[in-house]
Amino acid sequence: MQNLTYKILEKHLLKGKLEAGQPIEIKMDQTLTQDATGTMAYMQFEAMGVKKVKTELSVSYVDHNTLQNGFMNADDHAYLQSVASKYGIYFSKPGNGICHQVHLERFAKPGKTLIGSDSHTPTSSAMGCIAIGAGGLDVAKAMAGIGYRLTCPKVVEVKLTGTLAHGVSSKDIILKLLELLSVKGGVGKVFEYTGEGVKNLSVYQRSTITNMGAELGATTSIFPSDEVTREFLKRQQRESDYIALSADEGCHYDETVEINLDELTPLAACPNSPDAIKNVSELAGMKVDQVAIGSCTNSGYEDLMKAASILKGKKIAHNVSLVVSPGSRQVLMKLIENGTLATFVSCGARILECTCGPCIGMGQSPKSDAVSLRTFNRNFYGRSGTLSAGIYLVSPEVAAASAITGVITDPTTLEYVDEFEKEQSYIDDSLIYAPSKDSENVEIVRGPNIKPLPVNTPMDSTIDKKVVIKLPDNITTDHIAPAGAKVLPYRSNIEKLSTFVFENNKPHFDEVCKENNGGIIVAGENYGQGSSREHAALAPMYLGIKAVLTKSFARIHLANLVNFGLLPLIFTDKSDYDKIDEMDELKIEIVNSLYDSLDLIVENVTKNETYKVHAPISQEDIDILMAGGALNYIRNQQ
Amino acid sequence: MQNLTYKILEKHLLKGKLEAGQPIEIKMDQTLTQDATGTMAYMQFEAMGVKKVKTELSVSYVDHNTLQNGFMNADDHAYLQSVASKYGIYFSKPGNGICHQVHLERFAKPGKTLIGSDSHTPTSSAMGCIAIGAGGLDVAKAMAGIGYRLTCPKVVEVKLTGTLAHGVSSKDIILKLLELLSVKGGVGKVFEYTGEGVKNLSVYQRSTITNMGAELGATTSIFPSDEVTREFLKRQQRESDYIALSADEGCHYDETVEINLDELTPLAACPNSPDAIKNVSELAGMKVDQVAIGSCTNSGYEDLMKAASILKGKKIAHNVSLVVSPGSRQVLMKLIENGTLATFVSCGARILECTCGPCIGMGQSPKSDAVSLRTFNRNFYGRSGTLSAGIYLVSPEVAAASAITGVITDPTTLEYVDEFEKEQSYIDDSLIYAPSKDSENVEIVRGPNIKPLPVNTPMDSTIDKKVVIKLPDNITTDHIAPAGAKVLPYRSNIEKLSTFVFENNKPHFDEVCKENNGGIIVAGENYGQGSSREHAALAPMYLGIKAVLTKSFARIHLANLVNFGLLPLIFTDKSDYDKIDEMDELKIEIVNSLYDSLDLIVENVTKNETYKVHAPISQEDIDILMAGGALNYIRNQQ
Repeated sequence: MQNLTYKILEKHLLKGKLEAGQPIEIKMDQTLTQDATGTMAYMQFEAMGVKKVKTELSVSYVDHNTLQNGFMNADDHAYLQSVASKYGIYFSKPGNGICHQVHLERFAKPGKTLIGSDSHTPTSSAMGCIAIGAGGLDVAKAMAGIGYRLTCPKVVEVKLTGTLAHGVSSKDIILKLLELLSVKGGVGKVFEYTGEGVKNLSVYQRSTITNMGAELGATTSIFPSDEVTREFLKRQQRESDYIALSADEGCHYDETVEINLDELTPLAACPNSPDAIKNVSELAGMKVDQVAIGSCTNSGYEDLMKAASILKGKKIAHNVSLVVSPGSRQVLMKLIENGTLATFVSCGARILECTCGPCIGMGQSPKSDAVSLRTFNRNFYGRSGTLSAGIYLVSPEVAAASAITGVITDPTTLEYVDEFEKEQSYIDDSLIYAPSKDSENVEIVRGPNIKPLPVNTPMDSTIDKKVVIKLPDNITTDHIAPAGAKVLPYRSNIEKLSTFVFENNKPHFDEVCKENNGGIIVAGENYGQGSSREHAALAPMYLGIKAVLTKSFARIHLANLVNFGLLPLIFTDKSDYDKIDEMDELKIEIVNSLYDSLDLIVENVTKNETYKVHAPISQEDIDILMAGGALNYIRNQQ
Repeated sequence: MQNLTYKILEKHLLKGKLEAGQPIEIKMDQTLTQDATGTMAYMQFEAMGVKKVKTELSVSYVDHNTLQNGFMNADDHAYLQSVASKYGIYFSKPGNGICHQVHLERFAKPGKTLIGSDSHTPTSSAMGCIAIGAGGLDVAKAMAGIGYRLTCPKVVEVKLTGTLAHGVSSKDIILKLLELLSVKGGVGKVFEYTGEGVKNLSVYQRSTITNMGAELGATTSIFPSDEVTREFLKRQQRESDYIALSADEGCHYDETVEINLDELTPLAACPNSPDAIKNVSELAGMKVDQVAIGSCTNSGYEDLMKAASILKGKKIAHNVSLVVSPGSRQVLMKLIENGTLATFVSCGARILECTCGPCIGMGQSPKSDAVSLRTFNRNFYGRSGTLSAGIYLVSPEVAAASAITGVITDPTTLEYVDEFEKEQSYIDDSLIYAPSKDSENVEIVRGPNIKPLPVNTPMDSTIDKKVVIKLPDNITTDHIAPAGAKVLPYRSNIEKLSTFVFENNKPHFDEVCKENNGGIIVAGENYGQGSSREHAALAPMYLGIKAVLTKSFARIHLANLVNFGLLPLIFTDKSDYDKIDEMDELKIEIVNSLYDSLDLIVENVTKNETYKVHAPISQEDIDILMAGGALNYIRNQQ
């Protein structure tokens, strides 16, 4: 009797034992990348010297850097297209849609494993597969046929009963979980959805939940593959990809959470954290300046249909700017054909490209001090591009209702259609380019924005550096390596990117590092939550950061630190955190070797104190750290 | 017997005599602004202390800064919306379309005068009105009821005979004129279109020509108001705005140019000037990286219909990125309704907002060294955001044909529909907000990006400064005050904007000015061509530039220099230009007063030489210059 998670993991297990907390290695069937992390991932793949990807399917999407302010983005796109063609990777051209949306629609298969260089890769797990977000290097390794190492997760059953009421959305299910468990409540766990309530949720609705499971810090989230899945695949003209998959009756779960859908009400995540949940009814009446509908969380066909049915025949409030970005070209075409796009335009919406757009701070920054309602997944400080704006994460229904009234509005009492005929999807993969059959003759296009990958040096036995920054709990990768239109174009140019590290916390952090010949980062709980961007490890590495000492780490960032040779350490006694000040000199001596013990002593030279710390890493992680990162490690093995 | 131009000018004449070369002042019935120049124009209007605009109609459009990277753009939009509401101005919300396109469709009227703070304002002259581009201050003055001063233009008859062949576009007519006359061939002139060939041109086709008349340096271009105009207005549900208007038979023209449409072939303006014309057939086969269809030049209904009929059922080449931006929400809705938008998406096009977008360097910068085909009006160096890219200006037909083949392609031999039924337009002005009836209670929203207007000091009797930059012929306002996504957000923040002045010619020009306590600019012919942006005078003024010495000036920039108190001077002997080097010290003494003589002597202190120069200004210009600019002048009069 197995839960669904372990069933799939077992079929893909390469090393280790399926026991929560143990290091395991699994085979990855599929990979995906997006452009903001992909350029780096493919440069790493190139460095591995493999001729063709060894996966069943690898897809390279372009959905982040599509505004193209300056040559940098288009240079990256050209690089990605050429690399894909050469190495056996499918290339989804700009305009084809958001990676997670397109992957769910066209490629995700029940029972498979998928690793993606984007933290919202679990979107595809709505299909009954194991889809995990990771740093680009881990995706590059998967493409090279190397198994993915992770800590075997605990499995949490989320038992859904009842049915969502009119005006309540699957977004509210995941917002409820965030309220219950917080943004670090999912670390080391997979959330497996069960119960009668699952049957009434479409694949798109499920994907909103698995998508935003990332905000719990979860390894992934998963739904069974059932009749709903089969019908979805049928509409995608790929019913043959269907297999039924679910947990065995009476199987073991490490924990269980029950949510009665009948009792749910519309919720909102308030500034600046996805777990700062309030009832929409509490917020009702607050004036709204911007409403944004879209992103990999809520830009599927049904989401946009529901929003449109609220907007139909109405006009947006004078004080509101409404932007709509469909998740994929498939969705866009359907909306054009059935008149829904006309509904959006007619009510006053601005239609954006089928990309991540404002969710990643690429455009549509609201005005100063704005209230912005977004159907997105993250509302971290500054991510919208406007530091003073307050971002509220809501369902498409709340967003649409509020766009009309101009104030936050509970949609439950509105009359609108929320059931749609399950029509055939619009299938046209002509913007997905198959790799070349003549790969020898494909030349890689390397524009001037694409700089060589910086590489770390092997780890020293003594780290003696100053604390160049001390940070509170829940620092996100957006804090470490900001996104947005100003910084994202330099994702292939670490030297330039490193000048933006901690820009909103500590301007000129890069100069502090240079003056002190690198340093050590000290932080609170859940350090590195949020996006999978390995740049949040790579850029600090470039600045000479040798160790990161925290109360706890987010999963993907911890792996990224190891991948780039930065020593991750956790306080044994969390209260020691309070004893350290910025610019204290810390000395960490690795007496014999990390192989002997992962329990180390940090000496605070400035304060003449010592603290016990622990490196939360596996045996193989030690090899990688010693080599100065995974690329060095792989090279050394060749 | 009068030509059409003088007929309309006479009805609006406030001062002076209708004689080419004489200063005149005319009443402006309508004004328009766009957001990149509008914020400054409205700040100037506010400074004038007028309670309501005194025009028949004033419209404030938002079409340039719509990507919204950072709070700055949305702050500007909020300011513009509130100012419009308070002062009796209509506000066209972001998403409603490009100013010229919307104005032509909804507001332009035969026989009226229109002044707009955008150089392509003549687009509306396709309607048989006099529409002129100007600096924001001149538009602010018009809103305050002050007449517009200009040099009475020569009128050039452009006699069109014959009919455009299949695959040849009205774009090719204006490209042909640019080939014949060059980018400075229109200075001081109005181009008046006559002949049998006019009858076969729709209002949209005419507007492409009057739009790009700006590239000739013309004061404006004009078509008669005839049956074609009446039908256009009827489809816009405003037939009552129609009056028939044309030149009297046998009237006087200063010059005549004849173009036989039968003989025209598809043309392209090659990098980096709109008058670097070649036949498309000469360029055929050149590999294309990007194709962009849109902009105020070619984004009307018929343009997009023709492009779509070439693209129908086809797919774009793998090496091409195709972007389409419809000119207005009206056009977009029509394309959605009649299936044309589906054609674009289906062939692989990326659909952008109804804005200026890539034409003003807001996004879609091509990759390094790219060949980019654009249906736009300007291909100045760097304007696309990619310095190394080559921009070719072409018709929508050439653009569409090339997007499919992936190489520059002559569309004349292709089979496609190029005649469309004249259907009722989609009329919905719900994104155009009428001003408040309770203006007292409208509060102006001033975000932190909106900085107070810098003001000049009265002119000194001696200017003794260094030549901080020496420039060649045809320097554009894009060179002086660059556009694009990086700089445009600071259009309301002159201090910040001034750091970008001459960025692509002489990096850190602002520092050179600071070190030398301001300076003098020396340049060749046609200095300040291109956009109407007064920022190209305002930012140098802020940097302490006191005089600009050239071989000749473009019309709008000359007016902007006077408006902000910078002394414009022209070499009496053009060969003196060669004698001056950068960092020479020039001394200009105004012996008694400019009222005595506009012929001055420039002493080159460094080289111990003198040059004769002339200030090409009117008596009232002297008043303004003495006061240190028009705002001071107006304030002094109050």
